[in-house]
Amino acid sequence: MAMVCLSDFEAYAKKYLPKIAWDYFAAGADDCTTRDENILAYKRIRFRPRMLRDVSMMDIRTKILGTEISFPVGIAPTGFHQLAWPDGEKSTARAARAMNTCYIASTYSTCTLEEISAAAPGGLRWFQLYIHRNRAASQQLVQRAEALGFQGLVLTADLPYTGKRRDDVRNGFRLPPHMKVKNLEGAFEVCEMSLLDPSVTWNDIYWLRSLTCLPIIIKGILTREDAELAVRHGVQGIIVSNHGGRQLDEGPATIDALVEVVEAVRGRVEVYVDGGIRKGSDVLKALALGAKCVFIGRPALWGLAYKGEEGLQDVLRILQDEFRLSMALAGCASVSEIGQHLVQFSKL
Amino acid sequence: MAMVCLSDFEAYAKKYLPKIAWDYFAAGADDCTTRDENILAYKRIRFRPRMLRDVSMMDIRTKILGTEISFPVGIAPTGFHQLAWPDGEKSTARAARAMNTCYIASTYSTCTLEEISAAAPGGLRWFQLYIHRNRAASQQLVQRAEALGFQGLVLTADLPYTGKRRDDVRNGFRLPPHMKVKNLEGAFEVCEMSLLDPSVTWNDIYWLRSLTCLPIIIKGILTREDAELAVRHGVQGIIVSNHGGRQLDEGPATIDALVEVVEAVRGRVEVYVDGGIRKGSDVLKALALGAKCVFIGRPALWGLAYKGEEGLQDVLRILQDEFRLSMALAGCASVSEIGQHLVQFSKL
Amino acid sequence: MAMVCLSDFEAYAKKYLPKIAWDYFAAGADDCTTRDENILAYKRIRFRPRMLRDVSMMDIRTKILGTEISFPVGIAPTGFHQLAWPDGEKSTARAARAMNTCYIASTYSTCTLEEISAAAPGGLRWFQLYIHRNRAASQQLVQRAEALGFQGLVLTADLPYTGKRRDDVRNGFRLPPHMKVKNLEGAFEVCEMSLLDPSVTWNDIYWLRSLTCLPIIIKGILTREDAELAVRHGVQGIIVSNHGGRQLDEGPATIDALVEVVEAVRGRVEVYVDGGIRKGSDVLKALALGAKCVFIGRPALWGLAYKGEEGLQDVLRILQDEFRLSMALAGCASVSEIGQHLVQFSKL
Amino acid sequence: MAMVCLSDFEAYAKKYLPKIAWDYFAAGADDCTTRDENILAYKRIRFRPRMLRDVSMMDIRTKILGTEISFPVGIAPTGFHQLAWPDGEKSTARAARAMNTCYIASTYSTCTLEEISAAAPGGLRWFQLYIHRNRAASQQLVQRAEALGFQGLVLTADLPYTGKRRDDVRNGFRLPPHMKVKNLEGAFEVCEMSLLDPSVTWNDIYWLRSLTCLPIIIKGILTREDAELAVRHGVQGIIVSNHGGRQLDEGPATIDALVEVVEAVRGRVEVYVDGGIRKGSDVLKALALGAKCVFIGRPALWGLAYKGEEGLQDVLRILQDEFRLSMALAGCASVSEIGQHLVQFSKL
Repeated sequence: MAMVCLSDFEAYAKKYLPKIAWDYFAAGADDCTTRDENILAYKRIRFRPRMLRDVSMMDIRTKILGTEISFPVGIAPTGFHQLAWPDGEKSTARAARAMNTCYIASTYSTCTLEEISAAAPGGLRWFQLYIHRNRAASQQLVQRAEALGFQGLVLTADLPYTGKRRDDVRNGFRLPPHMKVKNLEGAFEVCEMSLLDPSVTWNDIYWLRSLTCLPIIIKGILTREDAELAVRHGVQGIIVSNHGGRQLDEGPATIDALVEVVEAVRGRVEVYVDGGIRKGSDVLKALALGAKCVFIGRPALWGLAYKGEEGLQDVLRILQDEFRLSMALAGCASVSEIGQHLVQFSKL
Repeated sequence: MAMVCLSDFEAYAKKYLPKIAWDYFAAGADDCTTRDENILAYKRIRFRPRMLRDVSMMDIRTKILGTEISFPVGIAPTGFHQLAWPDGEKSTARAARAMNTCYIASTYSTCTLEEISAAAPGGLRWFQLYIHRNRAASQQLVQRAEALGFQGLVLTADLPYTGKRRDDVRNGFRLPPHMKVKNLEGAFEVCEMSLLDPSVTWNDIYWLRSLTCLPIIIKGILTREDAELAVRHGVQGIIVSNHGGRQLDEGPATIDALVEVVEAVRGRVEVYVDGGIRKGSDVLKALALGAKCVFIGRPALWGLAYKGEEGLQDVLRILQDEFRLSMALAGCASVSEIGQHLVQFSKL
Repeated sequence: MAMVCLSDFEAYAKKYLPKIAWDYFAAGADDCTTRDENILAYKRIRFRPRMLRDVSMMDIRTKILGTEISFPVGIAPTGFHQLAWPDGEKSTARAARAMNTCYIASTYSTCTLEEISAAAPGGLRWFQLYIHRNRAASQQLVQRAEALGFQGLVLTADLPYTGKRRDDVRNGFRLPPHMKVKNLEGAFEVCEMSLLDPSVTWNDIYWLRSLTCLPIIIKGILTREDAELAVRHGVQGIIVSNHGGRQLDEGPATIDALVEVVEAVRGRVEVYVDGGIRKGSDVLKALALGAKCVFIGRPALWGLAYKGEEGLQDVLRILQDEFRLSMALAGCASVSEIGQHLVQFSKL
Repeated sequence: MAMVCLSDFEAYAKKYLPKIAWDYFAAGADDCTTRDENILAYKRIRFRPRMLRDVSMMDIRTKILGTEISFPVGIAPTGFHQLAWPDGEKSTARAARAMNTCYIASTYSTCTLEEISAAAPGGLRWFQLYIHRNRAASQQLVQRAEALGFQGLVLTADLPYTGKRRDDVRNGFRLPPHMKVKNLEGAFEVCEMSLLDPSVTWNDIYWLRSLTCLPIIIKGILTREDAELAVRHGVQGIIVSNHGGRQLDEGPATIDALVEVVEAVRGRVEVYVDGGIRKGSDVLKALALGAKCVFIGRPALWGLAYKGEEGLQDVLRILQDEFRLSMALAGCASVSEIGQHLVQFSKL
């Protein structure tokens, strides 16, 4: 079976992963409306491609928070990579480094931050944080990440409680006994989400700020009001995200929310987006609407499920080729030429 | 089979109820367009969730007409509960009391008001009334309800004649011989809808007013014009309802009509809504659009069909948990924080 | 099988008619988009029903061109009724008279005008005319109709050539040898549409006017421009029609065109509509949007196919009951209370 | 099997062509959204047909760049006609001449320009050009075409690189060994798209202009900005095209882009459109929206696949008959009467 596009990897993962793992990765909250809308919303955006522009020399590199990446696609934080591939997050880190892009490692990794760092020294990595009731544990995680050379701290804002994912409830999802949320070992029970702190507020950004010199990126913003608050509280970046549709169902598709957030932010901080990216042209749309970079979640897991590090590289390479081609066909030779003039929202 | 969400109960009821009973409960008028629209219209509403608000202490209680209930979901009036469970409305009353919410008992109950009262003393109950051609019979019902401690009188306004429910016609629906519309025994033939009075007008509100001190809630309002008339005729509450899509097909979905009614009422009386509630987040949407409380019809019957009183409690508990979670994920710690800013109508 | 609604008759006709006849009656032009849109467009119209109006005494009668009919539904002109029932148009005439409504007999009847008249003396009938290249033949038909007591002349304006109905082409549709277009016998070959005159213009209304004292109703108008021309040329009525979607595919649904035509006509002549009526509530919608009466085409043929005169009466009776019920549930006790305030166009 | 409409030819071709050839012709880029939208967009356009206009004498001829054709439908440039029929482009040329319309021969023909010319002397033909990295080869092609009597030069602007057509990748599509891109023999490897020059810009129009006296038509324009540039660079015509949805997926449907281009061009040059034409009424819509003529791609290939020259004539004849009929039913007796008043965009 030739791996031609990302849905080939999805089909592979659905076929070969254990059902409980597939279901966990695929799960959306409630009716999965938002999970699916993330994808459908891209289809409602139409390109306005321009012709006869010299696209013989294509430059698809960009920078996020000052660091160059090979193209504007990074790896979103997702948990439990060992469910997809035995080497887990170590493979993810290696693939991201090989493709010269950014990997956001999750608090809920099945490898430690130290293992991830050691697997791919020098790679661009950010660390994703949930704030736990035990603040000392969170502080320790932040400081370990900084010490290990992670270059950004991503605070997930949309999970005061875990969304209701029906399949996980039906399956009684839990990690197999031989896997552990290693970063938290000792501090908590494995996978015990109820230890997350639902009392976190904007003021906790100041607390985080006091712990680390790393840039703080807030993930999970969907409204102009919260975008404004994020800027005012001094974050360096915003990831427009609905947690892959796994938290509050029937919120906006992220690409729709991006427009509102970008408008509110007015360039004061970098804005990224995740959710629903399935083709290189989706990346082009997100950039046209103001994202500096996108992050992929489930497609990265499908790549891991296919062939670990190599499979994830395949996924990234396909996205890269498709992104480059769609840029060229839209008449853009470099990322700086991408702008809102390239797209319009379909009336249907 | 795990009962994870309300559609699990629906599937159970469809599988285990006699076809004629399932069809009766499921029936919509004509093409069932409005019945189905009640559900679809919720899906066109998108949340605008807010992040990083302290949602560690959740308070989901509310009050209707001054009485506190555990969360803003009551039991809408539906007929013939013995078709779903042998104990009929007695089970319904017990479940509602156990969950500390309001149960609107139907004129067309298969238990008497006295049996219902005795089954769950002290529960919050309203009585739903159809006005019959024989006004004395209606007067007697109202006064029995008041004497038994029912705390509200719900006048159904949308049934001058019964809607055309094709399956009921095909099935020749009628109550099995061992069930009776007990409240009306002696006064009428069982299930003889043609004894309802199609000449009822707004002036009959004054007549009802003269019979009872109970607050009068009018059920079945769908337009701003009728909402204004209801307020002017002195009702204490309005239930926006299309009778579960069982009366005039191709009227508005109730959640759409709610917007118009709330705007017209301008806070002068409480506004409630029924029809199409299938998830806790639907409750949140209705409250965001101005409803003080919602009422569930068919889901309550599915709960009864599953396990009587216990099954209905399961249904209510699921809705309660989902409502609390969706509030938290939208950034609201108490019902008073819910407002129109939380939602927007999807353009699609 | 109980006949509960019009689609029951459709299913019956589809099952029991010879395929070639079913296909002929069901056919739409090209992709059948307009045929199907006629029905779908009704579903996009929502009622705004009003409550607590005295609907104990329902009066559903109306008048068309001064003559009372029992309810605002007549029989549209369709050809070849013997394909549906051996007695053909004689049965149609009897059923229409029995139900006290108007029957528009087609030029392409399989009974003569004389047979139709004799079958149901005293019934309200209009005669539908195609203008043939041989004007004398058309003149003779008009004068026969007038002499036989037909009370209106319906000029079909939308068939300069016959639309392309793919199934008829595939089937090589033609009348069976024992049926004839009897009104035209002697004058033309049976079913030879190419003898229709594609050079007819508005001036031919004056020619028709010179032949007969009957009111002239023009059928097939879909735009405000043509509605204005029709009024200026002195017609007494307009039937908004797209020939059941059998002529130009992808024109407007008739209920959508009705709005435009009614607005242009400003009450100067009566406006009727056909196409897509499948429920009593569709009739209510058409009247709310300004139609004085609707006409049914295919449903009448399904009734004939079911049981001839009796089957057509069943169809009309169902529509009558549904219309009366939907009026009552919308809060109207008589046709004069129906108005545009009862409906709104769904945004979806 | 009767060939009644174009989809009959499509079904035939799908059934009888080798899968690899069918897939190549059918292919769209990525998810094939734009390929399918080209067709769907026509369905969202509604006619506003006018009645009682003398349509007894129908004149469907038009002129493109001053040359009369029998009706406003030409053959769009598509490659590799021998995949559809052994005689390849020679059959295409003969059919176009027989039907007195224009054939745009592709650079990627499997017959030489000389063979095409010889097959149908005197036919109206334009030559479609891709500019190769080897400019001398392109120059030679242009000059051969001009010398052979081709009357227009069509520059394809939307293929700096080939779009990603998944099925072709999966199939490993390449020409069978016995077929050749004969026009390029000697100059390049067969089918080596990477020899196309992605550095072409608007200035190359001037270079083309210097090579030939032929009118230059630019193909692949989708925006008002590029339409304005085309006019300013002195082209004689614009073909609104998205390469049949084979290049950038999720650009606009061509009929939607036509509106924008026609508005920008303001009559300064002729505007044509290809993509999605499947019925005569689609042609009428395109002309109503300002196209001077349309071109068909895949339907021509289906005609060839059916019966070569004869099959393509069948396709053209069906389109011609359907176009004439839809004009008449819309009330237009000649192409000059077609205008924007005939259509409206459906809100749905």
